[in-house]
Amino acid sequence: MRMHVQPRVGVIGVGYWGSKHVRVLNALERVSSVAVIDKREERLGALSRSFPSVRAFTSLEMALPQLDAVIVATPPTTHVPIALKAIAAGKHVLVEKPLATSSAGAQQLIDAAAEQDVVLMAGHTFEYNAAVWRLRELVQSGALGDLYYIDSARLNLGLYQSDVNVIWDLAPHDVSIINLLMGRAPSSVQAWGSRHAHRRFEDVAYLRMTYDLDVSAHIHVSWLDPCKVRRVTVVGSRKMAVYNDLSVEERIRVHDKSVSCSVGETDLTQPPMSYRYGDIVAPFVPATEPLAVQDEHFVECILTGRPCRTDGNSGRAVVEVLEAAAQSLQSGRPVLLDETSRSRERFDAGVTAVSSSRGA
Amino acid sequence: MRMHVQPRVGVIGVGYWGSKHVRVLNALERVSSVAVIDKREERLGALSRSFPSVRAFTSLEMALPQLDAVIVATPPTTHVPIALKAIAAGKHVLVEKPLATSSAGAQQLIDAAAEQDVVLMAGHTFEYNAAVWRLRELVQSGALGDLYYIDSARLNLGLYQSDVNVIWDLAPHDVSIINLLMGRAPSSVQAWGSRHAHRRFEDVAYLRMTYDLDVSAHIHVSWLDPCKVRRVTVVGSRKMAVYNDLSVEERIRVHDKSVSCSVGETDLTQPPMSYRYGDIVAPFVPATEPLAVQDEHFVECILTGRPCRTDGNSGRAVVEVLEAAAQSLQSGRPVLLDETSRSRERFDAGVTAVSSSRGA
Amino acid sequence: MRMHVQPRVGVIGVGYWGSKHVRVLNALERVSSVAVIDKREERLGALSRSFPSVRAFTSLEMALPQLDAVIVATPPTTHVPIALKAIAAGKHVLVEKPLATSSAGAQQLIDAAAEQDVVLMAGHTFEYNAAVWRLRELVQSGALGDLYYIDSARLNLGLYQSDVNVIWDLAPHDVSIINLLMGRAPSSVQAWGSRHAHRRFEDVAYLRMTYDLDVSAHIHVSWLDPCKVRRVTVVGSRKMAVYNDLSVEERIRVHDKSVSCSVGETDLTQPPMSYRYGDIVAPFVPATEPLAVQDEHFVECILTGRPCRTDGNSGRAVVEVLEAAAQSLQSGRPVLLDETSRSRERFDAGVTAVSSSRGA
Amino acid sequence: MRMHVQPRVGVIGVGYWGSKHVRVLNALERVSSVAVIDKREERLGALSRSFPSVRAFTSLEMALPQLDAVIVATPPTTHVPIALKAIAAGKHVLVEKPLATSSAGAQQLIDAAAEQDVVLMAGHTFEYNAAVWRLRELVQSGALGDLYYIDSARLNLGLYQSDVNVIWDLAPHDVSIINLLMGRAPSSVQAWGSRHAHRRFEDVAYLRMTYDLDVSAHIHVSWLDPCKVRRVTVVGSRKMAVYNDLSVEERIRVHDKSVSCSVGETDLTQPPMSYRYGDIVAPFVPATEPLAVQDEHFVECILTGRPCRTDGNSGRAVVEVLEAAAQSLQSGRPVLLDETSRSRERFDAGVTAVSSSRGA
Repeated sequence: MRMHVQPRVGVIGVGYWGSKHVRVLNALERVSSVAVIDKREERLGALSRSFPSVRAFTSLEMALPQLDAVIVATPPTTHVPIALKAIAAGKHVLVEKPLATSSAGAQQLIDAAAEQDVVLMAGHTFEYNAAVWRLRELVQSGALGDLYYIDSARLNLGLYQSDVNVIWDLAPHDVSIINLLMGRAPSSVQAWGSRHAHRRFEDVAYLRMTYDLDVSAHIHVSWLDPCKVRRVTVVGSRKMAVYNDLSVEERIRVHDKSVSCSVGETDLTQPPMSYRYGDIVAPFVPATEPLAVQDEHFVECILTGRPCRTDGNSGRAVVEVLEAAAQSLQSGRPVLLDETSRSRERFDAGVTAVSSSRGA
Repeated sequence: MRMHVQPRVGVIGVGYWGSKHVRVLNALERVSSVAVIDKREERLGALSRSFPSVRAFTSLEMALPQLDAVIVATPPTTHVPIALKAIAAGKHVLVEKPLATSSAGAQQLIDAAAEQDVVLMAGHTFEYNAAVWRLRELVQSGALGDLYYIDSARLNLGLYQSDVNVIWDLAPHDVSIINLLMGRAPSSVQAWGSRHAHRRFEDVAYLRMTYDLDVSAHIHVSWLDPCKVRRVTVVGSRKMAVYNDLSVEERIRVHDKSVSCSVGETDLTQPPMSYRYGDIVAPFVPATEPLAVQDEHFVECILTGRPCRTDGNSGRAVVEVLEAAAQSLQSGRPVLLDETSRSRERFDAGVTAVSSSRGA
Repeated sequence: MRMHVQPRVGVIGVGYWGSKHVRVLNALERVSSVAVIDKREERLGALSRSFPSVRAFTSLEMALPQLDAVIVATPPTTHVPIALKAIAAGKHVLVEKPLATSSAGAQQLIDAAAEQDVVLMAGHTFEYNAAVWRLRELVQSGALGDLYYIDSARLNLGLYQSDVNVIWDLAPHDVSIINLLMGRAPSSVQAWGSRHAHRRFEDVAYLRMTYDLDVSAHIHVSWLDPCKVRRVTVVGSRKMAVYNDLSVEERIRVHDKSVSCSVGETDLTQPPMSYRYGDIVAPFVPATEPLAVQDEHFVECILTGRPCRTDGNSGRAVVEVLEAAAQSLQSGRPVLLDETSRSRERFDAGVTAVSSSRGA
Repeated sequence: MRMHVQPRVGVIGVGYWGSKHVRVLNALERVSSVAVIDKREERLGALSRSFPSVRAFTSLEMALPQLDAVIVATPPTTHVPIALKAIAAGKHVLVEKPLATSSAGAQQLIDAAAEQDVVLMAGHTFEYNAAVWRLRELVQSGALGDLYYIDSARLNLGLYQSDVNVIWDLAPHDVSIINLLMGRAPSSVQAWGSRHAHRRFEDVAYLRMTYDLDVSAHIHVSWLDPCKVRRVTVVGSRKMAVYNDLSVEERIRVHDKSVSCSVGETDLTQPPMSYRYGDIVAPFVPATEPLAVQDEHFVECILTGRPCRTDGNSGRAVVEVLEAAAQSLQSGRPVLLDETSRSRERFDAGVTAVSSSRGA
């Protein structure tokens, strides 16, 4: 269903992320009006002071008839019921990560959106980050050589969520980035986690994902670390790249160094490795705001009918990994992801669509 | 067996670490002479140029009669046979980490040294590092509050070993540091590992150790990382500390911040956590060279008969963890460490001895 | 003249800084409405999209009757005529730094504001920065010992101004910070400067100011540096402090180290100095936005009639230093600041007033 | 005078730098023996422990007959008399920076060495630093575009010298680097300096040098700074480079960014500048030890008779700048360097000789 007029967009839940969406939507030309929906009146008041033209609602039911699209930025466990309500009302929906807290829920959203012919988009912000795309280019072009492994860390003190553990809160970013870099979903997942400052939810966790072609990926997420870290390291047989999202001028750094087995390798008392050291290059990456790019893409998809870069399938692929991680946390064993549920064709298709549109 | 004259010390294996021992021993006042033993004549030649007074041998058998003590700095799998030979000849022995590549081998060394009444010391250099002791003080004094977890990373490009994987090569440092901080050995160990640039040996690995009182410890070791990292993070309920061995002026940084569950905790839609942010303090840590402190301690133990800070039991405790990690790598499951083998009494005793002697 | 209703505030000139004022004023509770005045209609359009409730004017004359106060954020050489026009209309005025491009101009503003009994405030943002106040406390409390010197650097690539050189553009920040730290104006000024990428205006410059008690202060300002730097180093006989405005968590770092002449000092072949090394402490500094604190203070002064922290005299004191620097640039010699023009009593008084109100 | 046998080299003065020379010479193949000369017996004792084969003398007179060459590493004011004594005895001489503390003294050394036909070399270590040569290549090849300016900082807490101020102690490094980059000596020099922790000698100083073609260079040297800094920034019209000697992996970083005047430049209310931002590249620079390269070059010149890279003229050119800086410190005015004394032909010739020999 393609819209022919500029959409009226509502943001449901105006906490930390919801407020950012309001600011961003407010500055988008192709959004005709912005509304906020939240039960917490003091939040609505604060936003109204900064954005006097934004309309505020305390009830979704009252707001929906006056909107064309919504962004769901409420706690994760409420994503599915709220998004289903909006879809049922024929609204386009962007759901903050994670799309759902179960793959069944994610599938419900996909099916409902297909039936209503509305846009369903997962808020995987990092897939709208210029640095992540630069990293993807490095991987996909073969510039790094054969891909060896990916290691990702997303650490800070806080912000604890009220209804999910740190894996469901932070790892969606890393999983969506790594799936994007790999062009596919992993085949198995393991997880370690511990609870420290919170009784019910793990606040420190480590994930290990295995992809085809013997590539492994590790994710370290933490709400309880002294240092803020947002880093993805990608190591290949020829070069190594580090993406540090906290760096202003050098978000991507490519280290032209590598190690390889020496030919011959007869003398086992000597490590049979040879090392190569070269330049370090930080390519220029334009400083666009990923959330603005994402929300503009949402509006674009609503207006043109073109497929979303991070559609429901992409969102479900991430949820499946998190679900497998939760199982592994219980069992202490690796969890295989089901072949069919990995749904490679559709996932890859989505990526290709984005990639080609990007060059236009 | 206490020596009454200054020992003649030989270094067996003069690669990267062995050469450092030669330099350090050469400057120790209480060492009467230094010898080097290595089959590689070009190594001996290079050392002789820098240290003309050092005697060089290509055979251990020829060297032993002229020595009182040896430092074994050969590849890990040769540690036990070489050290046994030296012990059998009545020599005091310092074995580079890991003490052995099996706990049975470690026990053989302990038994042989006891029988011959010679000093057996494990080269856990970091236990002679002033920053590590400062970190231990922070943990043991309760300054950090209740201990939550420890996270350690030891990464670089290279140096690949010829006979063991990255866990046996690098993790001995982290395990010995963490055991020292905890005052005990862990109760269970898990490991993830991957082979990338090397066919037979894992070059990237992650360990998880569980200690009593619900403290978990994670170790990330890598021969294949673009960035050199030597970092231990210790998080407690009151403060958090980071030990960065690569920092010149701020090896230890204590972050006075924390998160805790708010009292009441009635509104589950709000994360019921409160955060506290305070100063960051980098205490002054004197710039001693740990290897020199260690080798001097070895000579001291030889001359005075006092117990070693990192004795055979301490070395075996580390080996047991690595052995369990190797099993976990195979099985994909956590491995429990045997209660008896954890030998807490003796291990703690060793620590106390050091601690008290330190204040003297 | 104390206002009894919330002021209507206009921002004149909505470039980089002007737009920030608009955002900040827009969120202040005690501002009844915000207007923008600029000849560039595309700027007005962009701001209106983000802040639909803001009224836009292309002419100051049309705007003034509908305002109670203005913030002058136009190019420096226009500050005095525009501010005089607003003062003549009885409006309260906050003038961005530098207050004027001549001390005579600054005095005109002071006199006019006194006559009209309106608030005249200089936009010395850094004097509303919590880190600067923390630094001042360190200096004034004697925690650093006897003050030796201050060294300040404010470097980046761009943003070149159209009507003044880099000294008039960037050094007002440093001079106002240093005057605040010292509690007085300098007694002499020297300057070095060079033109590189710009034909008419120096884009790299160095200032040296001498204060009483043998304290010297150096300022390095540049529009043409590869690295962004905003740093003030303050060195005393007991401790040294570094204020790095670009650091998120450690804007102030206090190094507890020093050097002193050894007693005796008889052997002149030995450097007769002794060094002391201690902890490094980064005190927690709250993350307030200085521009918001400043603009709120402006509104507060309008409503309560209390004296401004950065009043006209404070603004003129900074202008006098810059004027002297311009003379030194011509003559290649130090320029003494006139005793009377240094007007210490009033300047110090202003500082005290702020300081005491801060504790309330 | 070309030597046909490997020289016996003595190091006169074995403080911080002298001891480094001993270590380096000790490992050079083409040095037949190393001796140390110092009145301080405890220094000789310490060195003898580390290097038992080194012969120790407490008197220069006794040592000279047994040497072919000397390295003078005593306090700066003693350089000329000691070096003259060695030259008079027909010894080749390497004098630590500064070559002399007056240009007359430097000339005396040059004349004496010419008369005796011995090698006279200035210990400008940084001219043997691979990173400095990489920087020179960037400048000389035009990769940076037209050279705009150079800014250098060499800061730390200590080590105060006993007989000269911080300019004579640290600035020789910066001046020799900048002269090398420029291929010539400056035409004028200014200096600012202050005494803080030391009564007689400036411990913080700033130099400004003007070179032909409107290039300016600034040097900040300090014995009294909380942070260790060794940085040279070189800014051109096309690119900018930073040389940070404290960085392990990125000693040189080239920023591909620039600013230029827009064509037209009609609207004076708009800054008429356009900015260009590109990649940052840290070229691989091999990790050679400059002091070892330098001392080996000294031996090479002794054995082959080829001209020194940092000969007496190069040393005198640096001394002339420092002398002019001392005058400027007194007068508060710029000091012009005499055309003849700048001796460009010979200086440039020396540089070319090195440069071409380097490719061999």
